Amino acid sequence: MKWSKSFLFTLKENPADAEIPSHILMVRGGYIKKVAPGIFTYGTLALRSIRKFEQIVREELSQRGCLEILMPMVQPRELWEETNRWSEMGPGLQKMKNRNGHEFCLGATHEEVTTDFVRQQVKSYRDLPVNLFQIQTKFRDEIRPRFGLMRGREFIMKDAYSFDRNLDDAQKSYRLMHEAYTAIFKRLGVKFRVVQADTGNIGGNQSEEFHVLAESGEDQLLVSDKGTFAANVEICPAQDAEPKPKSSEEVKAMEEFATPGLKTIEDLSRSLKVPANELVKTMFFSASEDAKTVKPVAVLLRGSDEVNPVKLKNLLKLANPPLLLTDEEVKGVTGASPGSCGPVGLKIPIYMDSGVENLSNYVVGANKDGFHLRNVNHPRDFKVTAVHDLRLAKAGDRAPDGGKLQAFRGIEVGHIFYLGTKYSKAMNANFLNAEGKLEPIEMGCYGIGISRTVQAAIEQCHDKDGIVWPISIAPFAVHICLLDPQDEKVASVANSIYEELHKRGIDCFMDDRDERPGVKFKDADLLGMPIRLNVGGRGVTAGEVEVVNRRTKEMGKTAIGDVVATVQSLVEQLKA
Amino acid sequence: MKWSKSFLFTLKENPADAEIPSHILMVRGGYIKKVAPGIFTYGTLALRSIRKFEQIVREELSQRGCLEILMPMVQPRELWEETNRWSEMGPGLQKMKNRNGHEFCLGATHEEVTTDFVRQQVKSYRDLPVNLFQIQTKFRDEIRPRFGLMRGREFIMKDAYSFDRNLDDAQKSYRLMHEAYTAIFKRLGVKFRVVQADTGNIGGNQSEEFHVLAESGEDQLLVSDKGTFAANVEICPAQDAEPKPKSSEEVKAMEEFATPGLKTIEDLSRSLKVPANELVKTMFFSASEDAKTVKPVAVLLRGSDEVNPVKLKNLLKLANPPLLLTDEEVKGVTGASPGSCGPVGLKIPIYMDSGVENLSNYVVGANKDGFHLRNVNHPRDFKVTAVHDLRLAKAGDRAPDGGKLQAFRGIEVGHIFYLGTKYSKAMNANFLNAEGKLEPIEMGCYGIGISRTVQAAIEQCHDKDGIVWPISIAPFAVHICLLDPQDEKVASVANSIYEELHKRGIDCFMDDRDERPGVKFKDADLLGMPIRLNVGGRGVTAGEVEVVNRRTKEMGKTAIGDVVATVQSLVEQLKA
Repeated sequence: MKWSKSFLFTLKENPADAEIPSHILMVRGGYIKKVAPGIFTYGTLALRSIRKFEQIVREELSQRGCLEILMPMVQPRELWEETNRWSEMGPGLQKMKNRNGHEFCLGATHEEVTTDFVRQQVKSYRDLPVNLFQIQTKFRDEIRPRFGLMRGREFIMKDAYSFDRNLDDAQKSYRLMHEAYTAIFKRLGVKFRVVQADTGNIGGNQSEEFHVLAESGEDQLLVSDKGTFAANVEICPAQDAEPKPKSSEEVKAMEEFATPGLKTIEDLSRSLKVPANELVKTMFFSASEDAKTVKPVAVLLRGSDEVNPVKLKNLLKLANPPLLLTDEEVKGVTGASPGSCGPVGLKIPIYMDSGVENLSNYVVGANKDGFHLRNVNHPRDFKVTAVHDLRLAKAGDRAPDGGKLQAFRGIEVGHIFYLGTKYSKAMNANFLNAEGKLEPIEMGCYGIGISRTVQAAIEQCHDKDGIVWPISIAPFAVHICLLDPQDEKVASVANSIYEELHKRGIDCFMDDRDERPGVKFKDADLLGMPIRLNVGGRGVTAGEVEVVNRRTKEMGKTAIGDVVATVQSLVEQLKA
Repeated sequence: MKWSKSFLFTLKENPADAEIPSHILMVRGGYIKKVAPGIFTYGTLALRSIRKFEQIVREELSQRGCLEILMPMVQPRELWEETNRWSEMGPGLQKMKNRNGHEFCLGATHEEVTTDFVRQQVKSYRDLPVNLFQIQTKFRDEIRPRFGLMRGREFIMKDAYSFDRNLDDAQKSYRLMHEAYTAIFKRLGVKFRVVQADTGNIGGNQSEEFHVLAESGEDQLLVSDKGTFAANVEICPAQDAEPKPKSSEEVKAMEEFATPGLKTIEDLSRSLKVPANELVKTMFFSASEDAKTVKPVAVLLRGSDEVNPVKLKNLLKLANPPLLLTDEEVKGVTGASPGSCGPVGLKIPIYMDSGVENLSNYVVGANKDGFHLRNVNHPRDFKVTAVHDLRLAKAGDRAPDGGKLQAFRGIEVGHIFYLGTKYSKAMNANFLNAEGKLEPIEMGCYGIGISRTVQAAIEQCHDKDGIVWPISIAPFAVHICLLDPQDEKVASVANSIYEELHKRGIDCFMDDRDERPGVKFKDADLLGMPIRLNVGGRGVTAGEVEVVNRRTKEMGKTAIGDVVATVQSLVEQLKA
């Protein structure tokens, strides 16, 4: 493709609403254009990257026996009612009524439709196993779309669903997909990690996430330095590296004291000269599925710890993480503002993080603005509903395998779930087993965010000048800067290299615009093709072309006759 | 692909809701599965056909300089308000509100989004021309989805939009797309016709449709036997083969007479012994854009003619064809039921088809149930608002090029429009011309129904036993019936042919099920791959394989060693 025949406009300025490098670079490089918040048009170059990644995914799945189909984006309410997810999915599921008053939603995921497709056709165990996948546009009404394609509303996803006769076979399917995903992200050529993950409201009880590592990643990953354990912080068990033994200190009399203006743990810690991990903080959540009703519960944590909403969700058996109470609601429950609240005297369930269990004579809010209580002890001063691991684990904590946790940030790009029979039971997706008895089908589901992965690759692979595409999904392997387009000889050298590379299956972009070399080099760095060729008047006179490696910025001069071979070997090298 | 590893279930019975062969065959062949009315899941085989057709379209457009992009399916109301199509598109445009109360629609077409994409980036004439296309899932809330993919709600479409500096260039773009479409449907390998067409509510003033010919086609096409004129009946000018001269008959006195029980033109014609083309019928429509208000108009036609709603729409300058009044509404306007109505005494606009103009002393309804008037004459007895060509043309009529019209039925699969500046003016999509003056961009738009075309090809290419795929989009070129899968020698011959064909780039489906030969032959005919190979015990013992041409049903025996070469030459032959 030649720039003069493309419809590509790069921007010098950073877009106002882009917060992370990959989003900034995709907009500046003309890769995407916003249509509405979280909704984009993909330009020709972005689409090439997306299609290349789709093809990698398709090949790895097909060669493992998965079958590609295409399900609809518009789905009838009735199917979602069967699993109760019409309401359970919440407002992220975009609903609509058609002209006849029938209700539909936009597919955010396709468990219901696939299960329906399968139950209509599968009769006996002979029809199983099957693993169906599709690459399709999905929609979720994100409450706050941001970061470009990273958290968009409309996005391209590969979703796959496995259907098996029994648990053993389902586990085999799960492992096969683990293997396929590992192969996919290896071919993509990015650094990634696989971690244990929460199952969210998809259901099932086993799930792993595939993360592209990147500093700006939304997820925190905790990985044991022994290398056998890795988890998303959401579900990572929290164990102190040096657990505090049960205090042997004498239990003292509880007393109230004034703490005017001390509202945060940091304030208290500084003023009382007590380390934050010996203070106890009280947080309030609503244990209700329904945003309209409030069912307050209190959570006690050490001042140095943070609550893990997913652990709380799982403890309370909710479909979604519970919401924090507002200051108003807290006041209604305790009589005081959040900074002065504590467990003593509360009439609501009180959940205690394990880290608090062995503390004694600690300080909590007095449920009276500007006052705290000291020498508080449980169960003497208040009743604990349950003690549970409720805090976020962090780097330095002890890993379940005995190692020490290290922290990484990642962007979730793939997720595999073992679902069991949650959907097949709800939807009567059964088969006749070898003994002629009806059994529910064992299921798994497996997603890869296609458009998200493409941006995640940029988030990991860029420098101050622009994108540094992994060659696997670069829109083009080679970017030719034709520096003197008016000079017929130079243009002819550039064109013949361009043609020759295409003949050998190496795709090539050529900047044939009437622009200064400096502008072309800047744009080439911004667009980020792995190999750049500078073809200019001086070089051609000397019989040479410059070959630049985008990542290392190494530049070498190569004789015109050798350029194609040089590029070919560089491509092989970058693919390895 | 082997049947045992596919997820394919054929049906013996015709589905209850399928009315035309292609729909029946796609359902029976397991190609598609209904999710909701007009909404389908495409199975693996259907998806292969769709992808093959997409690739043909993509190649033909790309080689003509069109650029592929991908626009969103969910589009903000604001863009559609700019062109007034948020309301003009009517209830076929599926609308929805998101969690924040913002309004969106599902893209039924993408003029607004593309024009927005272009206006944000184009500055000067140097940035033009550009032709952008996408292959994407679209949604229209069809009032009565039917015929499978032929008139579905969710469907796959290729839409392209051209942007040019001036009318000349826009016409060049239009002709280039005409050429591309012709090449596409030639490569598809079906019989098709290009006809002049109405521009609907897309706008613009030049448009042609590409139709796959098929008996069950929804559209009637009229083609001159001179070969220079072809049009959709919707816009085909109607001229009598032998126009009736102005009547020289003496004008008689109008009189009312009783016609008890005579309600139709046929009744009247029989009873009065007057041919239908000398009777005048009166029809009533509402000239209102808005279904809630009624603006009655009357239309007069010869009894032998049918009204053309598109001509009436264009005469009345409406966005959509006007609706017929209900019997109730007619009664409100005339005081009589539709069978007894006429123009005399009406206080509403009266439009007369040209075929009525030269009649005199004719019969019309008396606006009194059970009575008609004879010897009616215009303008003596009523005032005509306008005389216009308002009837449907038909086979045998005179063509504009002087030939005689012949009728065909077709399925519209492609449509090209010259749009002019309708959208660019409404949306301020301008460019600076060479003189530095702002001008609106000249536009065209071009669609191909991808999923529709695949079914239309079946509608044209099938026989009583099943589908007869054109090889261009057959899911597989070859279908191997492995007749004795348990016989190792037979299976090994079949497998090596299968492997060898794949190596040569010929895709192959193998029925390796444990079924009787009769079942396999029936399914092979139903599924419709162009070439079938029967590999069975008797043949293998004799060193032979049967090669069957699906279309002609010709069968030949070929030595095992020659099968691959025979298939290869048959494939070449079928592609030619």
